[in-house]
Amino acid sequence: MNNNYCIIMAGGIGSRFWPLSTPSKPKQFLDVLGIGKSLLQMTFERLTSIAPPENIYIVTNVSYSNLVQEQLPEINRTQILTEPIRKNTAPCIAYASSKIFSINPDATLIIAPSDHLILNEKKFTNILEIAIRSAVNEDRLVTLGIKPTRPDTGYGYIEFEAGENQTGGQVRKVINFKEKPILETAQLFVDSGNYYWNSGIFVWKASTILNALKTFKPKLFQLFSAENNFYNTEKEQDAINKCFEFCEDISIDFAVMEKAQNVDVVLADFDWSDLGTWVSLYQYLEKDKKGNAVIGENIQLVNSKNCLINLSQNKQAIIEGLDNHIVVESDNMLLILSKNDEQNLKKYLENF
Amino acid sequence: MNNNYCIIMAGGIGSRFWPLSTPSKPKQFLDVLGIGKSLLQMTFERLTSIAPPENIYIVTNVSYSNLVQEQLPEINRTQILTEPIRKNTAPCIAYASSKIFSINPDATLIIAPSDHLILNEKKFTNILEIAIRSAVNEDRLVTLGIKPTRPDTGYGYIEFEAGENQTGGQVRKVINFKEKPILETAQLFVDSGNYYWNSGIFVWKASTILNALKTFKPKLFQLFSAENNFYNTEKEQDAINKCFEFCEDISIDFAVMEKAQNVDVVLADFDWSDLGTWVSLYQYLEKDKKGNAVIGENIQLVNSKNCLINLSQNKQAIIEGLDNHIVVESDNMLLILSKNDEQNLKKYLENF
Repeated sequence: MNNNYCIIMAGGIGSRFWPLSTPSKPKQFLDVLGIGKSLLQMTFERLTSIAPPENIYIVTNVSYSNLVQEQLPEINRTQILTEPIRKNTAPCIAYASSKIFSINPDATLIIAPSDHLILNEKKFTNILEIAIRSAVNEDRLVTLGIKPTRPDTGYGYIEFEAGENQTGGQVRKVINFKEKPILETAQLFVDSGNYYWNSGIFVWKASTILNALKTFKPKLFQLFSAENNFYNTEKEQDAINKCFEFCEDISIDFAVMEKAQNVDVVLADFDWSDLGTWVSLYQYLEKDKKGNAVIGENIQLVNSKNCLINLSQNKQAIIEGLDNHIVVESDNMLLILSKNDEQNLKKYLENF
Repeated sequence: MNNNYCIIMAGGIGSRFWPLSTPSKPKQFLDVLGIGKSLLQMTFERLTSIAPPENIYIVTNVSYSNLVQEQLPEINRTQILTEPIRKNTAPCIAYASSKIFSINPDATLIIAPSDHLILNEKKFTNILEIAIRSAVNEDRLVTLGIKPTRPDTGYGYIEFEAGENQTGGQVRKVINFKEKPILETAQLFVDSGNYYWNSGIFVWKASTILNALKTFKPKLFQLFSAENNFYNTEKEQDAINKCFEFCEDISIDFAVMEKAQNVDVVLADFDWSDLGTWVSLYQYLEKDKKGNAVIGENIQLVNSKNCLINLSQNKQAIIEGLDNHIVVESDNMLLILSKNDEQNLKKYLENF
């Protein structure tokens, strides 16, 4: 029996990728790279190197469960866990962990967001194996930290114990979690060498996280543990719907990670992005000599440079005279935006 | 009986208004001003001030006859004359003139393109009345010349006899028709005061133009006069289809106007544009303080100036950071083009 289980969190609405992402088809379901696979499909595929497909669970909002089944036809409907309402990551993890624990009390869980980009999959698998060893052998709550390549103010940071010679080498004890910093602070973090980006990827035994929840969020633990008799029966969804109605809206970081003492970070250096913005996606796209990243089959791009163009496949377009712009078209929506004005996209969206 | 008849020429394909105009719905059928009426509808309406609706005929390509009927439901199907193939203006005029002559030998014809813009409709009507007087009383071939407001190199020019005190005042004898000039020549034309833009609007008696055709293009005249017995019968379309197969592909300017001696121009100063380009349309659109002309209901235009935006009504758009651009979206097509690169649009279209 393979004890490795994955929980892919796929309930987000990803408004920042408008107009490609919409509440009815958010970011994780999109082929943002134009390679024929959605981010969810890439995440699933990547995790099959560490767990058998039947051990990979997708937690999503009830409104997306059909989309998940469509994009991952190889999984069983029972591997799709549906949340009736959005309640952040702690309830999601409490639910999935309790359920998997009821199936296999020796389960090790790899928790991963569905909408991030990870390159260097071999490195990724190696890092996960290190994380699993620490989680299994030493009952640790393990998080993956990414070596920062710039003082990004869009990411949280993990402060960890210094020193090459400590046990584990790549595995370090976490001192602190830091929310998104201002630029000056981010620069200090990067310069110090003891701060890595918080990837939101976690590894732990089901028993370890349930113990931690019992300690730090006993009510949340109780809600989902009381349902033990219902898991994997016809009554599961009804029971879970009630749990979500009553449970707290809180992230796993706040609920557990910032309080627990047995938290490790594995220092990773694979290419990673949370793809939080169009510009962050642009960095990972293939570009022509003039720095244009173009997704679309029938586009004439003329006298333009450093642009990100993403049009639906059947769109015939002439685009001339743009510099540093994002142009994205989807269904009834069109975005033309200077890259350096991207921080205002959310504000513009609120004006509709 | 009202002897005034209009012939609206509506067979063009207007490729320069891509992507709004397409071969399946060219410029004359579009509401390019965003006012709820197509150019054809505006042309028809304008001409009802000079001729009763039942005397207004539309000549169009067979592929557009349903579109004409749709846009002008008030006219009888028999008022739509269909050309089986595109053969320029002389055959179109020979056909319509012969047919109307067979209905009313005293008919006076006002020939007008369907896809031009004319403001100051009162002035337009007055000018037409002057033209009709000259055409009827003196058997003249009358053309409307527009006072040039700039040395436009996109228009043909009409050279006319100078002198305020000549007969007619506003009616002058034409000396010469000039093809689209280079800028220096256009400037000389404008400075001289004896050159007006050629509007392509003509006024003459049916008998006068048929006589002119008989003199200068006897074969063309013969073709369409031989069909006298078929006009206004069930056999008309078949007969006309054969005529078009055999007739010359030539403009009325080349066929008649440049050769005839009895040609007058009425000097007009209403606002007129052949709407040959997006930029020429832009000049006539209502603009905001920053010089943006926006057609579309749900568009946020930010940090942008001197733009022409034309999106379909249901399109939700954020457009930011553009200067002097044309942005037009329609169905599966998108155009983003610097205004000063518009002359290359045709070239880009050929690349598809």
